[in-house]
Amino acid sequence: MRTSIATVSLSGSLTEKLDAAARAGFDGVEIFENDLLASPLTPEEIRARCADLGLTVDLYQPMRDMEAVPEAEFARNLRRARHKFELMRRLGADTVLVCSSVSPQAVDDDALAAEQLSRLADLAREFGVRVAYEALAWGRHVSTYDHAWRIVETAGHPALGTCLDSFHILSRGSDPKGIEDIPGEKIFFLQLADAPLLAMDVLQWSRHYRCFPGQGGFDVAGMLRHVLRTGYDGPLSLEVFNDVFRQAEASPTAVDARRSLLVLQEAVGRAVLPEPVVPTGVAFAELVTPDAEPFAALLGALGFTRTARHRGKPVALWEQGDARILVNTGPAVRRDGTQLAAIGLESPDPAGAARRAEALLAPVLPRRRAPEDVPLDAVAAPDGTELFFCATGRPELPDWRADFEDTGRPPAAGGVRGIDHLALTQPWHHFDEAALFYRGVLGLTTRESVDVADPYGLLRSRAVTTADGGVRIALTVGAAPTDDTVHAQHIALATDDVVAAARRFRAAGGSPLPVPANYYDDLAARFEFADGELETYRELGILYDRDDRGVFRHCYTRTIGRVFFELVQRDGGYRGYGAANAPVRLAAQHAVRALTGG
Amino acid sequence: MRTSIATVSLSGSLTEKLDAAARAGFDGVEIFENDLLASPLTPEEIRARCADLGLTVDLYQPMRDMEAVPEAEFARNLRRARHKFELMRRLGADTVLVCSSVSPQAVDDDALAAEQLSRLADLAREFGVRVAYEALAWGRHVSTYDHAWRIVETAGHPALGTCLDSFHILSRGSDPKGIEDIPGEKIFFLQLADAPLLAMDVLQWSRHYRCFPGQGGFDVAGMLRHVLRTGYDGPLSLEVFNDVFRQAEASPTAVDARRSLLVLQEAVGRAVLPEPVVPTGVAFAELVTPDAEPFAALLGALGFTRTARHRGKPVALWEQGDARILVNTGPAVRRDGTQLAAIGLESPDPAGAARRAEALLAPVLPRRRAPEDVPLDAVAAPDGTELFFCATGRPELPDWRADFEDTGRPPAAGGVRGIDHLALTQPWHHFDEAALFYRGVLGLTTRESVDVADPYGLLRSRAVTTADGGVRIALTVGAAPTDDTVHAQHIALATDDVVAAARRFRAAGGSPLPVPANYYDDLAARFEFADGELETYRELGILYDRDDRGVFRHCYTRTIGRVFFELVQRDGGYRGYGAANAPVRLAAQHAVRALTGG
Repeated sequence: MRTSIATVSLSGSLTEKLDAAARAGFDGVEIFENDLLASPLTPEEIRARCADLGLTVDLYQPMRDMEAVPEAEFARNLRRARHKFELMRRLGADTVLVCSSVSPQAVDDDALAAEQLSRLADLAREFGVRVAYEALAWGRHVSTYDHAWRIVETAGHPALGTCLDSFHILSRGSDPKGIEDIPGEKIFFLQLADAPLLAMDVLQWSRHYRCFPGQGGFDVAGMLRHVLRTGYDGPLSLEVFNDVFRQAEASPTAVDARRSLLVLQEAVGRAVLPEPVVPTGVAFAELVTPDAEPFAALLGALGFTRTARHRGKPVALWEQGDARILVNTGPAVRRDGTQLAAIGLESPDPAGAARRAEALLAPVLPRRRAPEDVPLDAVAAPDGTELFFCATGRPELPDWRADFEDTGRPPAAGGVRGIDHLALTQPWHHFDEAALFYRGVLGLTTRESVDVADPYGLLRSRAVTTADGGVRIALTVGAAPTDDTVHAQHIALATDDVVAAARRFRAAGGSPLPVPANYYDDLAARFEFADGELETYRELGILYDRDDRGVFRHCYTRTIGRVFFELVQRDGGYRGYGAANAPVRLAAQHAVRALTGG
Repeated sequence: MRTSIATVSLSGSLTEKLDAAARAGFDGVEIFENDLLASPLTPEEIRARCADLGLTVDLYQPMRDMEAVPEAEFARNLRRARHKFELMRRLGADTVLVCSSVSPQAVDDDALAAEQLSRLADLAREFGVRVAYEALAWGRHVSTYDHAWRIVETAGHPALGTCLDSFHILSRGSDPKGIEDIPGEKIFFLQLADAPLLAMDVLQWSRHYRCFPGQGGFDVAGMLRHVLRTGYDGPLSLEVFNDVFRQAEASPTAVDARRSLLVLQEAVGRAVLPEPVVPTGVAFAELVTPDAEPFAALLGALGFTRTARHRGKPVALWEQGDARILVNTGPAVRRDGTQLAAIGLESPDPAGAARRAEALLAPVLPRRRAPEDVPLDAVAAPDGTELFFCATGRPELPDWRADFEDTGRPPAAGGVRGIDHLALTQPWHHFDEAALFYRGVLGLTTRESVDVADPYGLLRSRAVTTADGGVRIALTVGAAPTDDTVHAQHIALATDDVVAAARRFRAAGGSPLPVPANYYDDLAARFEFADGELETYRELGILYDRDDRGVFRHCYTRTIGRVFFELVQRDGGYRGYGAANAPVRLAAQHAVRALTGG
């Protein structure tokens, strides 16, 4: 099916919007009136620009407060419409969106609405234009899609059809099943948008909080299935008003938008993409840093052994249990400072995983970083983190470890079993994109979003995981666009005995993040502990949380650059990440930074 | 009356919060549990810190889900409470806030609630603590202040009283008159917060959008009058959960908070401040710039004459009608680049205006910048703009122009009458503060806030004006904290004939901001014009708007540094600022910047 996007969904000048839409692979655009008015290009130049970019102009929008008004008012409306139809002819746009009236002048009279819309359609036909009438959720007298359709049906005009918008339909809780009663050829246009489930005024909700399908709480796929059953074969068009997208760069937003449509089309059986290949675990986490020493000391204290080094590059492999950490000090370090730069995902079919990622518009990275390297399939996540699809010790597939030469020191069988989760700070403008990326590309499941109070602003955090928890990635976003690099990333290491692991860490000279005494006094108030248990936690800086299934105990190292480690013990099926303790952890990290001037 | 602030209203560590509250002049604080838990200070150390700062600990908060629960649960609650009462003894806090339960375990049984709260109060009394029971607006069974009071009254316990919170009362639309039925000595605490009038889930509204009294839409003063009639003599305490304040620096937020309480206390007759002295006009606007030449050319083309120069400093005075612009190229230029740095406000009583500003915590600037200067009363606005209270040509007061030496050239009597308005970009974190500042300090009236779509994000704009429009300041805030310096400030010049003024500007070599042709095609669709009228606007780049009273015509110059000029003609009592045209203007400015690489 053809895909389209409304220019209001992207930031910048009209030219920037059109370029971004074309580069992301859209077939067409809806041109939003304000974008045209503000453009120095004439309608003819815009038409030519679109043609050069391979874009059709699928809709011009919107006309407002048109129908069911006193005759004198309607005469003025027709005059205005004539100007707009002339403009559309110059623009090469053949469909106009007419939103149901919100004017206090409009009367509750369906017959009048049908009659005036017919006359509007008569005029439109002179210019080769079709009128698509849509019920705004906050329309004065017409606010549901079936009501708008009844008026269109009454009018019975060939140049008058309806426009369906998933936001207006689903935000009101209308049953979308009735869409199937509309003949497909009378659905002139289909606008798609999702939204988080918020209890708020629907106009504000619509204007500021819409998002791309799959990023909110609506069943957009379910609604789309009803539309497709009518035989509708016009474009699937995204119309998203969103305060964040308005500020973000247009190009990544357009890619995010197109990816959301691909995932949606797949869900309704209208796109065939390579099957998702769900990763089974974390093969490695790769840190880049200009100075390996601090990590050598920290990993050593955590019980890791440097088991191997890369044959061609300054990359060391540290192992313990199934936890593998690469420390890369090479000149190819792609970004400044110390950070978590890449994740190796254990994949049943690395090439297949990469094919799906590519089909879903993830940038594909070169398969070999150097001629002698084992070819590895890799893509970039929205935040720039490199994702390697790889195999560890599976004879049928190339093993990424073949690039490494053993140091002769076997991995320690210490307290760490593997990697429990990885936490990545996301760029402010692309938090929702990241969740959809991990879900669509890797087949992970997105968990609920939680607010976390940092002393200097609210953070939002959301996990994406495999069903069995083999891969868990916690995505966190700061309170403002400037926070991208303020908050740290971390690697959480799984242990079956966090007390023993924390003791070993201390005994080996590790210095845990100090936890305030007041925190333990509060634990004593909230829970009952066995004798001495709380004192042990207090001594070792271990934090404690509990959900309806089990218990979570965890402690933190100090931060190096933007990276720190966590030791975690999950018992009894605890599913969270200790979010209840995050404010205490964040405050402690700020306190350390304030002391060390970091 | 004593004033207090909840630590949750300010950002940072507990120490930073306490310092900021004390510096702003608060008498006490409410300590929010999470701030204490995250602090490395012991309760005794916090108590000592507060004492050193002259702060009392007026409340510890909150206890949740305490009452009307099954006995086994209540026993656990009492156990938790005992820990907290011990903590409060160490902290020196004698009042605890208990919020009405939201627990699914709570039952709808007022008698049980009263009985359990009595038992809690018994325990509290052992520790010298009083229990203040408050109805959360989203409490499970108790959600109104009168219901909470009935339970407290039923309990009849000396250590049990009620806590009133303006947000919880006013957000539900409860009639606050009934507060007068509560004996003042049973109101143990009073929390004050305002909020913008939003139609949204009350919990989200409360947690993210509260603001200080006078910054939202609630009648906080009206509610407070009812409370004071009961004889309540405890503190007025601010408890504001706000996503923006969480990110802002604590010190200016604390000053903003305290100023809001001073204005509120004055409104209810509990504070005597120097009377407001409303300015009558704009005496001058002062630009600072490293290079006077571009402004000399621009002001010349706009019809201004350089009438005078400062006797001691490189400051030129340009005049036309009653519009006076100072161009300051001195080394004392306080901030980088070219900007609108100061406003001279024509004041009936400059010294009185300064006294009020100082009483409302505005930083007072030195009266003389140099020994030979005329002494001028001046304060800094929240965005750093210097406000001078001054007199122009009034014999009974020192005239600021006495510092200037005439060039001998008389002011041109060109098309400009005076300054219509000044537009100032506000720092993201202090938009609401600015509006309250201009209202409280200068006695201006705040107008409605409007959203304006910039190509790169939504802006918010709000005017503050005198009743007769003699002073109009438009405050604008960007879409993100990083936008402080992206958007320009401007000076709008009033003319009775914008067409003639624009023609003169062009003829004198001025280059107006280009306005897209599409904009004029849209005007033709929306309005009917006299023959040739629209062509004139199109030729001269004049924009057009209309409200229910009159017509607004305006055009713009190019931008120098962060400053541009606007020529405006208001007819028939038009009250706005052409906000409908702002998206076109902003897009045109971005287009010019993109071309010139600025």
